Amino acid sequence: MTRILLKIEYDGTNYSGWQKQPNQKTIQGEIEEAFARATGDNIELFGSGRTDAGVHALGQTAHFDTKLPIPISKIAEILNNQLPNDIVIKSACQVADDFHARFSIKKKCYLYKIYNGQEKNAFLANHVGWVKKELDIEKMREIAKILIGKHDFKGFCSSNTATLDFVRKIFSIDINQEEDFIYIEVVGNGFLYNMVRIIVGTLVDYSLGRLSLQDVKDALKKGDRQKSGQTMAASGLYLKETFY
Amino acid sequence: MTRILLKIEYDGTNYSGWQKQPNQKTIQGEIEEAFARATGDNIELFGSGRTDAGVHALGQTAHFDTKLPIPISKIAEILNNQLPNDIVIKSACQVADDFHARFSIKKKCYLYKIYNGQEKNAFLANHVGWVKKELDIEKMREIAKILIGKHDFKGFCSSNTATLDFVRKIFSIDINQEEDFIYIEVVGNGFLYNMVRIIVGTLVDYSLGRLSLQDVKDALKKGDRQKSGQTMAASGLYLKETFY
Repeated sequence: MTRILLKIEYDGTNYSGWQKQPNQKTIQGEIEEAFARATGDNIELFGSGRTDAGVHALGQTAHFDTKLPIPISKIAEILNNQLPNDIVIKSACQVADDFHARFSIKKKCYLYKIYNGQEKNAFLANHVGWVKKELDIEKMREIAKILIGKHDFKGFCSSNTATLDFVRKIFSIDINQEEDFIYIEVVGNGFLYNMVRIIVGTLVDYSLGRLSLQDVKDALKKGDRQKSGQTMAASGLYLKETFY
Repeated sequence: MTRILLKIEYDGTNYSGWQKQPNQKTIQGEIEEAFARATGDNIELFGSGRTDAGVHALGQTAHFDTKLPIPISKIAEILNNQLPNDIVIKSACQVADDFHARFSIKKKCYLYKIYNGQEKNAFLANHVGWVKKELDIEKMREIAKILIGKHDFKGFCSSNTATLDFVRKIFSIDINQEEDFIYIEVVGNGFLYNMVRIIVGTLVDYSLGRLSLQDVKDALKKGDRQKSGQTMAASGLYLKETFY
């Protein structure tokens, strides 16, 4: 048996998220089916984590086991030939038998792209979150500092989560602006459901004066979801990189 | 009664084409519903023509009639506030009562974007047609010349068309390359079903040596669909402009 780790890029627009679901087009489902079509072998793919419908990936990772004697160097090509054009296997490598794409992870980096232009643009819509009012990245950086470190992020996740442990560590939040776009990179040891989208929504709402410094402190200390920001659109979110 | 002409931009990725269909997300359906939500009035929108699922528009046009006393200058904003971000009303203007978005048309310009790079790219997939083998735009221009003018284009449309008159006039086919992208603009007085995608497929297949000059001449003279090129992917096609 060989354990293979894939690095995967996808445009999530056309998919109901990562996780396989009956009668839905999903990233996991497409890759498993592509492998079966190419080799006849049924694999089970374990992703580094789920991504929601409409969320993209520049570097999702996922592992699977196979007994087939396929040269590792051919796996990306074999899969890419079978996969639709909006899912790309960037690389495949062999990993140890006890390696796990989800449980071996040390850090993850998410990118959120904000379009901060005035004019509605159809061709950006599926790949950014749009904030029409002008944002102040200095204010966003100011509030981001408060979130860095090890905290209970109960106030920064969607309520329909099954998690009991809300403690996560945020290593960095980098915010950069290029013309009408703001790029926010969040690196953490793990993320709760919708956590990146709510963190970014908190930076946005603080910048626009919809939240005070005290609100954000309360969201963090009291775990009060009412005091953190909006959940930004899925379309702006990219799983950029995983670190093992 | 006031007749209004809209100019519309859309990313077609998420839609089952222009034309309203039950239980499908369509551009026409979204705009009619947006107008009803905003004003309570039910309109019927007449487009310059249909676009297929996955086809985009930079400048689709469509007209409708309303008895409501809405200031023309507010219509785009009212609709844009109700429409999803991937459909944008670029402008609205009043037209004569006998103007018709489809029947008054004189010329249409379609743009086809080819991605001619080697590397599979998930984020281009929904917005280009991908040709991996290197194309020669001089060869494409050579064969394009043959298609310009007034011809019977029976050999350049999908067979499941209900049309009886296949004569159309192509005014120009402009082909330009920028790095890994080839942009093909086709201007004509009208287009048969899939005609632009088959014209572009013919340029591609001729450039790659899959079709000879004689094949293309036969496709044109004999109306033989077997002698014209592939139907390129919907994802690369943009209705760029309509002329009245």
